[in-house]
Amino acid sequence: MNIKNIAIVGGTHGNEYTGVYLIRKLRINQFQEKWNGLNIDLLIGNPKAYEKCVRFIDHDLNRSFGKKDLTDFELPGYEANRAKVISQKIDPKDSPKTDFIIDLHTTCANMGVSIILVNDNIYNFKMASYIKSKIPNCHIYYIPTESYAEHHFLNTLSPYGFALEVGPIPNGIVRHDIFNQTSNTIDVALEFINMTNSGENPEVDNAIEVFIHRKTVEFPKDKEGNINAIIHENLQDKDYQPLKKGDPIFSTLEGEIVTFEEDEILHPVFINAAAYYYKNIAFSLTEKVSVDTKKGLTKA
Amino acid sequence: MNIKNIAIVGGTHGNEYTGVYLIRKLRINQFQEKWNGLNIDLLIGNPKAYEKCVRFIDHDLNRSFGKKDLTDFELPGYEANRAKVISQKIDPKDSPKTDFIIDLHTTCANMGVSIILVNDNIYNFKMASYIKSKIPNCHIYYIPTESYAEHHFLNTLSPYGFALEVGPIPNGIVRHDIFNQTSNTIDVALEFINMTNSGENPEVDNAIEVFIHRKTVEFPKDKEGNINAIIHENLQDKDYQPLKKGDPIFSTLEGEIVTFEEDEILHPVFINAAAYYYKNIAFSLTEKVSVDTKKGLTKA
Repeated sequence: MNIKNIAIVGGTHGNEYTGVYLIRKLRINQFQEKWNGLNIDLLIGNPKAYEKCVRFIDHDLNRSFGKKDLTDFELPGYEANRAKVISQKIDPKDSPKTDFIIDLHTTCANMGVSIILVNDNIYNFKMASYIKSKIPNCHIYYIPTESYAEHHFLNTLSPYGFALEVGPIPNGIVRHDIFNQTSNTIDVALEFINMTNSGENPEVDNAIEVFIHRKTVEFPKDKEGNINAIIHENLQDKDYQPLKKGDPIFSTLEGEIVTFEEDEILHPVFINAAAYYYKNIAFSLTEKVSVDTKKGLTKA
Repeated sequence: MNIKNIAIVGGTHGNEYTGVYLIRKLRINQFQEKWNGLNIDLLIGNPKAYEKCVRFIDHDLNRSFGKKDLTDFELPGYEANRAKVISQKIDPKDSPKTDFIIDLHTTCANMGVSIILVNDNIYNFKMASYIKSKIPNCHIYYIPTESYAEHHFLNTLSPYGFALEVGPIPNGIVRHDIFNQTSNTIDVALEFINMTNSGENPEVDNAIEVFIHRKTVEFPKDKEGNINAIIHENLQDKDYQPLKKGDPIFSTLEGEIVTFEEDEILHPVFINAAAYYYKNIAFSLTEKVSVDTKKGLTKA
């Protein structure tokens, strides 16, 4: 396997500035020369949303890359069109010309460096495992999907790659620490590609911790449908930590404590992410599993 | 002196959710009964901006309360009108019916609990000193102004009161810790009012640390006028800490380090605040002084 054409996309969500500033920095600093032998395309995903410092204009761009939507030219809104532009530019789904995509994101949740995979192929998983071995505070978050072609993430335009989610950072700013973590993760990913391109088999642990997406949890709401609770302070910032029956999860405006009522221990992520308030989502739940790095995710 | 009519305003900036949720909570929880003897008006400042999760729709509402603007009915935009509605409701500038205003804000800068004063009257200063003695991580930030009547802050509608700025917290979310710090600060302020109303003279230290606003500092920009630097990691989160000549303040996208070049030691605040990127402002500089609590700010 030889990976030659790579796309790195920042600002797929317009208010996540880290990716935009990093793309601008990489364009200035002869990044392409540093990775001689790889063709690296550096893209701003949603320039119009970036200009307005909003996640999206009409529709979440990173929910716009399902094959059906990409071939539906009647879909209204800026992002429906922008997804087609990006798709045509870097990777028509039926005839991919880009082998590998890293889509850069940030979150105000305490997610550290999260490698988000929606594809169970062994190459992606091994790369994620390699990154996890090199980057402190790195987690692998796997979202199983029935149809990779129909999945709406930008990085599904190519069979290889991942969405990179780094936090905590507020929307609309750049922080030096989060910027460097994002930049370092890209370097490790490209280092992995260079190694496998030259026939090396990068060493990883035999078993790797993976968080598999289960479901989202909504905030409690009042009669008018307004969120009327706050993430409980015991849960705030505890992304990837175990949550068990009886643990407080919300404090309502009426002064009540809401506890976790699932029988099994699960691991919350995207806790109190600003990006999901408009959908009333408080956090997502994952199952923590140990995966054999020789067998990969499908065997989990 | 007797303070009877009080207004507490949340959501003057629509994406600062803490104030909005707190106002909603106080409305539910018979807050008025708890402070029997005080008339407390609980207001949402900018409901339209809150609905859209933006700081403002057309113009910063908290820059709309100068006397001239309040009497100019030709001023366009939602906030120009909203300021007049709030002014009429709580406190016409020429015939104040509200004695005291607390205007609730948050910031993603590491500002702790900041009491922002634009009025040098001794009552406000003594209250701020009292709050500082009761609330950990509280700072007094004084912005001198030539004309209090012409000042554009909402809380200048009344002679007494302050803007409360609590952080760090991203825009568009509520955090339990920041929520509680905001709520506790309001309680201490009302406790102070109750004490002075009943003739008590609350005890404060003889001298109090105050940060006096000097000026704002802009980000470095490229030829097209785009911000092309990041707050240096040594400065990030160091609000209210001393900054001296030679300290790194920016890291540019070209890879250069920009250092602080003032000869005197100053104390930055609002470092890397998302709210000010649209104005290219990186941080503000203050001078730290010790103020005699008997003499107040005018004697500083």
